[in-house]
Amino acid sequence: MTDHIGISFSTGEIMGSSIRETLRTIGDMKDYYRDEGARRNLDPEKVVYRVQAFMPVAEGEQGGLFFGTTFVEPGVVGDEYFMTKGHFHGNRNRSEYYLTVQGAGALILMDENRRTVFEPMRPGSVHYIPFNTAHRVANTGDSVLAFLACWPSDAGHDYGTIASQGFGARLRKIKGVATLVEEP
Amino acid sequence: MTDHIGISFSTGEIMGSSIRETLRTIGDMKDYYRDEGARRNLDPEKVVYRVQAFMPVAEGEQGGLFFGTTFVEPGVVGDEYFMTKGHFHGNRNRSEYYLTVQGAGALILMDENRRTVFEPMRPGSVHYIPFNTAHRVANTGDSVLAFLACWPSDAGHDYGTIASQGFGARLRKIKGVATLVEEP
Repeated sequence: MTDHIGISFSTGEIMGSSIRETLRTIGDMKDYYRDEGARRNLDPEKVVYRVQAFMPVAEGEQGGLFFGTTFVEPGVVGDEYFMTKGHFHGNRNRSEYYLTVQGAGALILMDENRRTVFEPMRPGSVHYIPFNTAHRVANTGDSVLAFLACWPSDAGHDYGTIASQGFGARLRKIKGVATLVEEP
Repeated sequence: MTDHIGISFSTGEIMGSSIRETLRTIGDMKDYYRDEGARRNLDPEKVVYRVQAFMPVAEGEQGGLFFGTTFVEPGVVGDEYFMTKGHFHGNRNRSEYYLTVQGAGALILMDENRRTVFEPMRPGSVHYIPFNTAHRVANTGDSVLAFLACWPSDAGHDYGTIASQGFGARLRKIKGVATLVEEP
C-alpha cells in the first residue's frame, strides 16, 4: 500500500516518487534573525534548510501521520546559527517526534508563556515535542544537520506567531559556544 | 523536556530510563499459528518478539504520539515465520509508520474485507499503515528483524479480532520462499 519509500539512516535522505521537497533560502528568512543587515549581505539564493515530506493523507485529516526529513545547512547569520523558521502547531494539542540522523544541533522549544529552552541534537537523539510548544532547529555544527520527523496530519502549522513575535530567546554563537540568550 | 532518549540506527535499540519493554514468547502465542502442535513442541520461554516503547502521554489521549522499536527473532513454527500477534487499531481511523532498521521481513496488512497483502521489509524501508488496516510483521530472514514505529496515543489496540479470526492469509515458508497463502 505504501508506494516504495526508503530512507538512509546515515544521511536521512528519503527516496520515493511521492516525496515533496521545500527549500528555504536566506532570501526566505527576512526578519527571522537578530542581525537583519548580516542576512541581507548574504546570497539570498543560499539554502538554509530543505524539507522532504511524505504526506499520504490530506493535510488536516484526523488520525493520519506525516513523515519527513529536514536538512539544515551549517552557517551563521551574524552570531545566530542557520535555523528553521519555527512554528507552533495550528492545532495546539498535537505533538511531534524528531530523530537526529547526522550532524549537531539544537531543538529550541518555547511554551505559550514564552519560556524557551533547548535540547542538544546529535545522531540518535530522540525528541518529543509536546502540546502547546513552538519548535525550531538550529545547526550548531560544521556539517549538515539532518533529522527525521513524524507528526499528525491534523497538526497544522502556525508560522505567524513566530514570524511576528519570535521565540523568547535566541541561540547565539558566543565565543564559539551555542548560548541561549533571552530576548528583551 | 524529552528525558534523554537515544536510538541506535544500526540495531534499533532505544536507550532511556522511561522505555517500557514487553516480551512475547512461544508460550504467549497459543493459537496464533496454523500448526499449534509445532508451537507446543517449542520451548514456551523462547522469545518471539520484544517491543520497546516510549509513551510520553497517557494512552488514549488525543494528539500525542508514541514511539518504539520491535525486535522479531528469526525462526519458524511449522512453516510459519516468527511474527507479531497483529492488531487493528481500536480507533480504526488511526495510522502508523514502520521503518525497518535491520533484518528482512514482511509487513502483513489486512483490510476490513479480509483482503491481505504484504510489503517486504528491509533496512531503510518506510511503511505507512493506513486507516482500517490490521498489521502484523513476520521475520523472513535468518537474523533479528528490527523496525521503528510511530503511532498516535489514541490509536488503541484491538487484538481480539485477530486472535479470534486471524488474517485472511498466512505467510508461510514454502520451498524456502515467503509465500502468502489464503486461509480457507
